[in-house]
Amino acid sequence: MANSAWSEKILQLLRRMNNFYLPGSCRSKCWRFEINEAQVGWIPPHVASLLTRYPEVFSPPHGGAVSLCGSLDSYEKKSEAVDAVLQSLRQESSLTCLKGWRDEKYSVMPKFSDPPLMWMERAATSLFGVKRYGVHVNGYTVSDSGEVNMWLARRSLTKQTYPGLLDNVAAGGLAAGIGVKNTLVKECEEEACIPAAIAEKARPVTNVSYTYEDEDGVFAESQFVFDLELPLEFKPRAGDGEVQEFYLLPIDKVKELLATDDFKPNCAMVVLDFLIRHSFIEPDTEPCYQEFVAGLHQTL
Amino acid sequence: MANSAWSEKILQLLRRMNNFYLPGSCRSKCWRFEINEAQVGWIPPHVASLLTRYPEVFSPPHGGAVSLCGSLDSYEKKSEAVDAVLQSLRQESSLTCLKGWRDEKYSVMPKFSDPPLMWMERAATSLFGVKRYGVHVNGYTVSDSGEVNMWLARRSLTKQTYPGLLDNVAAGGLAAGIGVKNTLVKECEEEACIPAAIAEKARPVTNVSYTYEDEDGVFAESQFVFDLELPLEFKPRAGDGEVQEFYLLPIDKVKELLATDDFKPNCAMVVLDFLIRHSFIEPDTEPCYQEFVAGLHQTL
Repeated sequence: MANSAWSEKILQLLRRMNNFYLPGSCRSKCWRFEINEAQVGWIPPHVASLLTRYPEVFSPPHGGAVSLCGSLDSYEKKSEAVDAVLQSLRQESSLTCLKGWRDEKYSVMPKFSDPPLMWMERAATSLFGVKRYGVHVNGYTVSDSGEVNMWLARRSLTKQTYPGLLDNVAAGGLAAGIGVKNTLVKECEEEACIPAAIAEKARPVTNVSYTYEDEDGVFAESQFVFDLELPLEFKPRAGDGEVQEFYLLPIDKVKELLATDDFKPNCAMVVLDFLIRHSFIEPDTEPCYQEFVAGLHQTL
Repeated sequence: MANSAWSEKILQLLRRMNNFYLPGSCRSKCWRFEINEAQVGWIPPHVASLLTRYPEVFSPPHGGAVSLCGSLDSYEKKSEAVDAVLQSLRQESSLTCLKGWRDEKYSVMPKFSDPPLMWMERAATSLFGVKRYGVHVNGYTVSDSGEVNMWLARRSLTKQTYPGLLDNVAAGGLAAGIGVKNTLVKECEEEACIPAAIAEKARPVTNVSYTYEDEDGVFAESQFVFDLELPLEFKPRAGDGEVQEFYLLPIDKVKELLATDDFKPNCAMVVLDFLIRHSFIEPDTEPCYQEFVAGLHQTL
């Protein structure tokens, strides 16, 4: 693929993954989701109108915001009241995303540095545009001559989301109360059979953030990214059935794949960031260098 | 300094360097600066009213935008007509920033990947909120035991801007027509007497972008960042009189200095990015990790 066609594909990926910021997105029609007067998400109009049926949990939309009722005055009360609403909506089965119910609790707070105000079922977060945090690991090797190869996973065909697409060697969402490094070690073990003694050598290097919308709502996501140089003789193996196969690929091949539809989009972003940080993309030969970096770190 | 006080100082730095995005900034009062119907900057109201005196160069403000007249139909015509206006404003001396006239031509274009539409004197770019691009170099050493130290420059007391403050080992603006790596090699040589054979080993790693406003206008800046591991025995030396002294400091000391007013603010941002990429800051112990990364990559 010619350089400029590759760059254009990458820009398209970044635009798609940040389409909530584009003119014409549902953003101007969304309600702010507020708890204790602080914004914790964005509620699309079709969700806001469903929520009016639960006035004991959600105050009526007001001043551009939907808020939790003041009577829900603790972390547990908020979490349980919202969960009851979601369970009821799940049974009606009008909201497709709730069919992917996972029994995974995600923390809800205005910023990552704030104390969580409640937890919410993972499958429901897009209905409220609540920010989801996760961990992604770039697994790679460096040969004696300095050549870099990257391990990629092929997602299992039975995965609920993005079946059969390329993924980072390990990745996962941050469940309520679990630390970033602990999540990384757990996911490395479960998904790729990387023992803790190796996974713990992963180095935090950045955070990749983006917000996109689709028919399931607003996906505001923020991934903590780690680099993990794997021993040359080590081979990741499929662990929990989420991965069908692992490949060790030269960087040129990885770069080429980034511009195809074979990659889970947010994993492609994490790999793009790796290519930039490791100088496989240079500002004098990649005119969109600055746009690439900007597209990897969009926040409201 | 306690951890949380350090984090708060860093957040303040990032907010100040992105104050153009904050509620209450002049942004809502600025005119878009447009060339061929594409936005290339932001013109503050006091500048826009001065420009109405030059109707042969600037079309009257219209639809939120100030544009160059259509008769200026080439790169050279645009550049020379605007330069003549700036020379005239410079003589009136009502605009402080023009006292810092440098005879350095900066390219003006909507995005870095677009062909330049004109050049503009560096000292005037803030009057038009035109994005300025530059290069910053993190110079550092790694001891045999793996300990990292960073070289910092103390700016000369005679520098026009930020005299006496701490700076990266080398940095400079991208003049029209000069490449990123060439600028880096030139600045390393001129400011720090780093020979080209060493400077060329610098590796591009990211881009740091921010926009702030002050009494001189709107500073939209985008810095291409390079890491340069210097040989242990090499010592940078002041070259062109822009630096008074170089220090080699342990990372803990550098981190402490970041939260003081001793650093040129954008250089502190470049060093913060280094600390994140090199895992000297970790998400489990720095609650503001994600906000730090976001604050280093703000674009409109």
